Order: sequence, then C-alpha cells, then structure tokens
Amino acid sequence: MPETTTELKAEISALLKAKDGVGLRLKLTRWLPSDLAPIIADLPVEKLALLFRLTSREMAAATFPYLALEAQHRLLKLLTPEQSAALLNELSADDRTAFLDDLPLDLAMQLLSLLSPDERQVAQSLLAYPEHSVGRMMTLDYVAVHPEWSVRESLDYIRQHGYDRETLNVVYVVDDGGRLIDDVRVRRFLLGSVDRPVKELMDGNYAALAPDDDREKALEMFRKFDRVALPVVGEGKKLIGIVTVDDMLDVADEEATEDIQKLGGSEAFDEPYTTTPLHRMIQKRATWLVVLLIGEMFTATAMAFFEDEIAKAVVLMLFVPLVISAGGNAGSQAATLVIRALALGEFKLREWWKIMRRELMAGTALGLILGLIGFLRIAIWSMFSPVYGEHALKVAVTVGMSLVGIVLWGSLVGSMFPLILKRLGLDPATSSAPFVATLVDVTGLIIYFSVAFLVLRGSLL
Amino acid sequence: MPETTTELKAEISALLKAKDGVGLRLKLTRWLPSDLAPIIADLPVEKLALLFRLTSREMAAATFPYLALEAQHRLLKLLTPEQSAALLNELSADDRTAFLDDLPLDLAMQLLSLLSPDERQVAQSLLAYPEHSVGRMMTLDYVAVHPEWSVRESLDYIRQHGYDRETLNVVYVVDDGGRLIDDVRVRRFLLGSVDRPVKELMDGNYAALAPDDDREKALEMFRKFDRVALPVVGEGKKLIGIVTVDDMLDVADEEATEDIQKLGGSEAFDEPYTTTPLHRMIQKRATWLVVLLIGEMFTATAMAFFEDEIAKAVVLMLFVPLVISAGGNAGSQAATLVIRALALGEFKLREWWKIMRRELMAGTALGLILGLIGFLRIAIWSMFSPVYGEHALKVAVTVGMSLVGIVLWGSLVGSMFPLILKRLGLDPATSSAPFVATLVDVTGLIIYFSVAFLVLRGSLL
Repeated sequence: MPETTTELKAEISALLKAKDGVGLRLKLTRWLPSDLAPIIADLPVEKLALLFRLTSREMAAATFPYLALEAQHRLLKLLTPEQSAALLNELSADDRTAFLDDLPLDLAMQLLSLLSPDERQVAQSLLAYPEHSVGRMMTLDYVAVHPEWSVRESLDYIRQHGYDRETLNVVYVVDDGGRLIDDVRVRRFLLGSVDRPVKELMDGNYAALAPDDDREKALEMFRKFDRVALPVVGEGKKLIGIVTVDDMLDVADEEATEDIQKLGGSEAFDEPYTTTPLHRMIQKRATWLVVLLIGEMFTATAMAFFEDEIAKAVVLMLFVPLVISAGGNAGSQAATLVIRALALGEFKLREWWKIMRRELMAGTALGLILGLIGFLRIAIWSMFSPVYGEHALKVAVTVGMSLVGIVLWGSLVGSMFPLILKRLGLDPATSSAPFVATLVDVTGLIIYFSVAFLVLRGSLL
Repeated sequence: MPETTTELKAEISALLKAKDGVGLRLKLTRWLPSDLAPIIADLPVEKLALLFRLTSREMAAATFPYLALEAQHRLLKLLTPEQSAALLNELSADDRTAFLDDLPLDLAMQLLSLLSPDERQVAQSLLAYPEHSVGRMMTLDYVAVHPEWSVRESLDYIRQHGYDRETLNVVYVVDDGGRLIDDVRVRRFLLGSVDRPVKELMDGNYAALAPDDDREKALEMFRKFDRVALPVVGEGKKLIGIVTVDDMLDVADEEATEDIQKLGGSEAFDEPYTTTPLHRMIQKRATWLVVLLIGEMFTATAMAFFEDEIAKAVVLMLFVPLVISAGGNAGSQAATLVIRALALGEFKLREWWKIMRRELMAGTALGLILGLIGFLRIAIWSMFSPVYGEHALKVAVTVGMSLVGIVLWGSLVGSMFPLILKRLGLDPATSSAPFVATLVDVTGLIIYFSVAFLVLRGSLL
C-alpha cells in the first residue's frame, strides 16, 4: 500500500483540482470508504471539503473520525449547514460522541440540533453516560438476530442491515425482549447448511460490559478475552451496544499517556502535546509546579532549623543536593514501577505487604550500594585534597550512612504512597516522580542532619 | 459471564476432584477452547495438568498462552514428555515463539527437539527474526485463497483448513506464486452468490508489514488503519504470516511500560514488577541510581567552588534544595511530555524548533510564576522574622530571579535532550525524569550562585 497510497493521493488531488466529480467518484468506488479514510485524511482540509461535496456522505462520515479536532472544526465551517447535518447524521454513534464530547457545550448543542430526531436521541443518550465510561465508547452498529431464525434468514437480515459495517465480525443473538443470549463469530455463519437455526451455532457463553463500567474495566476484559468486540448490556441484560477492539488500542494509549503525564508531574492533558493551546498547557503544568514549590519550601524551613550546624560545618552543605537527590531518585523509581504494575493489574491492593517486603529488601540493597560509593568518593578524594577539612572521614561516614537511610526511605515512600492513594479512591499516578522526590527531599534533610549530629558531635558540631 | 464463570470453575474443580474424564469432556465440549482458556487459566497448575491429561490437546494449547511464564514452566514439568511434545506442537506459532523466547537457551533447545520436523522448522525460522520484530509476532494461522476460485470453493477450503481459527476475520488472496494480491474481510463471503469468483470481492487495496519491521511500526499501522489483522509479506511480496490486533494491545501495553520504567529512572524490566527476581530488579535499578549519583557528585564539586560565598552567606544555602528542585521538576515535566508525544508520533524530529519555541514560551511563563511566588515567600516572611538576615530582600530577589532562569533552563533541557537522543538513534525515554533533574541540578547551582553573586555583591558577598 505505501507506494499506491502516494500515487492515489496525487490522482485524487489532480481530479479535485480539475473539479472532475465524475472521475473522482469512478476512482473511489473501487474502495471501501473505511479503507480509504485513513489515507485521504492526510489531505488539506480545503481539499477534503471539496472532495466531500463531490462524493458520497459515507466517504465524509468514514474520514471525519481520522481528522484532528482542529481539522474537524475547520472542515465543518467549510461545509454548508445541510452538508454538516448530513455528515453528522451519517457518523457512527461512537465517533460522533467522541467528537461532540470535545466541543464547548454551546457548539455541541448547536450541532445536536442539526441531527434528525432519532439520531439526536441516540447522541444525547450516549453523551449522558459519564466521561471515560463504556457508554461513551459504544457503537450501535451491531447486528442482532434471534435464536430460532435460520442461518439463511439471518444472512438476509445482515444483507439488509449490516453489509458495510466495520464492526461485523460478531453477530449477537437476542430473545424477543432484546436480552442478550449469546455472541457468535460471523465466520460460523459461513459454514454448514443455511437451513440450520442460529441456535445450533451458539455456545451459550459470552462476556459483556455494562454502560457505566469504566473504560479501564473494558480494557481489562479485552486484555483477558482477546476478542475483537464485546457487547454492552443494560438493565435486564438488554443489548444496547458494542465496543470494538480498535477503540481499545486508543484507550490503552490514552490511559498510558495520562499516567505518563501525571508521573512526569503535570496534570493529564486530554489532548496531544503539540496541539494543546499554550495557555492551557501552562495552566496544567503550573498547578503542580506551584504545589511542588510550596512543598519544597519546607526544605528551607528544615534547613533554617539546622542553621547553626550549617554555619559550623559548611562542608556538610556540599553534599545536601547529592544526598537528597539520591533519595528522590530511589523514590521516583519505586513509585513509577508500582504505579505501572497497579495499572496493569499485576497485583491486588490487599497484597501491599508483598510490595513493602520487596521494597524493604531492594531499598536496603540499593542504599548499601549507593552509601558505599558515596563513602568511598569522599574518603578517597580527601586523601588527595584538603577541601573536605580535617574531619573528612567522619563526613564520609555521615554521607554514606545517610544515603543508606534515605534510599531505603525513598523506596518505601515511593512504593507505598501510590497504594495509599489508590486505597483512598484517588488516582495512584498523582504520586508523581517529582511529588515523591519533594516528599523525600524534606524528610531526607532531617535524616541527613540527624546522622551528621550523631557522627560529628564533639568534632565538627 | 462473570456469574457463570465462578460456577463453571467450581463445576470443573469438582469433576477434576472426582477424576471424571467423561463428565469433564461432556461439560467442556459446549465451549470453544479459545473461549474457555482465559477462564480456566486461573486454576492451580496441578489441576490444569490433570485437566489437560483428561481432555483434548486443543484445550491445553489454547490455555497455555494465558499462563504466566512461571506457571508455564511448572506445567510442562508436570506433564510427561509425550504430553509436552503434543502441547508444543499444537500451540499456535506466535504463542510458541513468545514462550520459547523467554526461556534460557538450553531449555529452549531441549523443547525445540520435542517438535515435529515441520513445526521445528517454523519455530526456528520465527525465532531467527530480531527481538521486537514483526516476524516474532507472526502467526501462520491464516487462510489464503486464489482470485479465480469461486466463493463456494473458498468456503470448502476454509471449512477444511480454518474452521476454528481465532484469526479468521480476514481471508487473504494470493497468486500462484504465493504473492499477496488483496485481503478480503470474511463477512464479504457471507453475502451474494456463492458462484461468484473471489476476484469480485476484491478491492485491490491492502496494507502489509515486513517481517523485519519493528513492532512499533506495526502498532503505528494498526493505529492508522483500524484493522483486526495485517498481513506480513517477505521478499517479492510473498505472504508469510499475519499479525492480529489482540497482540497489538499487548505491544502497546509493553511499549508504554518500557517507557514508563525508563522515565522513572530504571532500566526496562521486560517482565512484571511483581515476578521479577529480586536480584535482577536490584541490578536494573542500581545501574541508573549509581549513574545518577555520580552525576550528582558534580553538585558537590560546584558547591565546593562557591564554598567561600557559602561561608559568608549561609542564608543562601537554605534555598538550594528549593531552587534546584524547581528546575528538576520543570525538566521532568517537559521531558515526559515530549517523550510521550514522540512515542505516539505526534510530531516529526525535524519540527524540533516548534517544540523549542513552545518550551521557550511555556518555560518563561512557568519561571515567572514560580519566581514571583519564591520572591513573595521570602520577602513577606522576612517582614515577620529575622531568620533571613538584614539583606532578606536581596536574597528574595536572588531566589526569584534564579527560579525564572532555572525553570526556563529546565524546560529547555528536558524537552531538547530526548530529541537529541532520538537524533543519535538512541531511545529518547533514556532521558528520564531523574536524569534530567540531575542535569539541571548541577547547572542550576551555577545559575543560582551566579545570580547571587550579581545581586549580593557588595552587601552579603
């Protein structure tokens, strides 16, 4: 495809330039709109508007979801109200929900009013589900048949109702009340006699989601069951929609992006980094930076408390950044590892003591390694240079011992804090690397100066 | 399903306890092995071994991939060599590659020798592809037909060769030389006359991968084309396998996990946090912590350089952790955002100047906000407390101005460093939050003491 894609785009551009609607339609009929969509979505918006005017509204509806939000806006402005209405009515329900969801309320309402009464009702009911819920991601493009129908009747029904649907990999079986009984992979309809009832294709075994389920729950189900689609059932097991695996890839990406952005110490952006308006990006980043700055101010308070010691032993100050950053780094590591393991469902919250035991052991080992290196660095250096004063060896012991304690402390804080957040019903990823580092900085200073006081009392202090 | 799942597991456990092979087989025939597999994979390994002995090897092969590596090991030890051989021969090619790949070489060779000559050749050829390549993830469970075959002939062929295949959502069309001509969704075979040739179902448009492509490339294609499967073609466009979307969900998860672990400042684990042996975990974490510690030692060197100033103005020391951590936090944010945007392909490397411009503006704004807060904190505090000495206002100016410079500097370093790594062909995620923080700590100290020297010269210094 890569070769033909470029050629195809050039051909389409030429036909558009010549405003050759007939040639264009002829060119494009060979393709399914859903196959063509990701390719032509790269065209400039102005060309797309022209293309949609000259071809079918199916083409427009298939391509629209591939555009960035900003391109979607500009495109709608280039179309007449009638064309916009046709496009919005043709969009599949989940794509429309995703689009309307990102708009300011007034604009969304304006566009809703362009929809036909039926489609408007669908759109409103989907938008009524909570953000990030399965209901928001549902599509209504599924095919449901009855168990007593024959395969032939089912195929006739599919031909009338679902031929071109992207989502036709699974057929759903419902009873007269619309309650889900089973899901049957479409390929099973291929084989055997067409006179058999659908009942004979069933295995009575299906997995289903509820519309209020969080999308992370859906992701978990798809990870577990390796399906291409899962049905969504409402009250009384009534089938109300389906969720498809290609949306799950997006959800997995978005969830990971959210976690990564939070771990990096900013709020989740909800839109791509490159297209987030500057003022909104600054706001999302400033909030956490200010919170962290205020937290870090306690380091100044802690150090003011030790000011006399500092004045007596300025050499101690040289190692403050070294010691506290080692604790922060150990904490960042532990927090990141635990948060990701939680997100992937690798352990249950009630197994927190297993994590604590692991981190106690790992933190001690890491602390001993870093402590030894810190001790040797100062001890060896002081053999060749007077910069650390006459008590250099005691300073080396202070730094070495502090590193052991602070790295262990950092690992424990970093690993346990996300679990506490989760237990309180908060997002564990809020416990970002910079957040843990700040927590550990303040307590790390107290550890450092306490160790110094013990080791250097009577000599430097 | 959730309700029935628990019941079903209890029933299976009871039948296993009674060693009732006939009852068990009767119970299980209603289910497709692939549907049952994720459910029974939760059973203890000993019960599974018994289950596999009493039922079909299809059941064993379907369930095996759902087990954790350690459970897979234990299971194979519980089976006789004949049973192991049957299981391994039955496994689908991609699942087998994934399993063998995680084993020590000697054990993998031992198991390879259990395979039939044909399967051994397949396994060896797949393992010969580079790690994380598309070739390693391929499955050979696809159905290929010829364009001149009728739909009826194709269905007969599918019935013989691909009835129960998980992957039968797309049928591939090849010429006499085995070269891929098109892919046709299986539902198109459902509709219309069975006497039509396959040719009439084709649209001449397909996307394909190469076996040496990196799995990230595959992920990008799936993101773009929303397919359930993509074909893999070798030299001369010969069809050699397919990759399915459920594997892509795993790849997206694994790639995000790798990036998150690196961002948190450790090496990527390649296995779950909870099951990584302790010594290996400590090693993966220690490497980076030691590198960062050695990097951070330059802060001691930098501070030793300013030791005279510090002795004269101990009050300056109080704000060292505050100032350098603000730079580190800003850097962590910027690095994380840019690395994730790169991973999702949101911008091209040659657009680096766009990122730089954004970060210049954001960094300046964030620096001004933090600088103002820092200034006010010290200025206001000093009205009520003598702790910052007679030159408190000048100290406040020093801290405020330093914050502006350091936050801007942190944002620039954090955003540009990942791009430089990428340009050099290295993994941008290596530029972790702790790494950027360490870089900014050292340079931040130099900025802070330089500003202090300018502002406080003649008064405190």
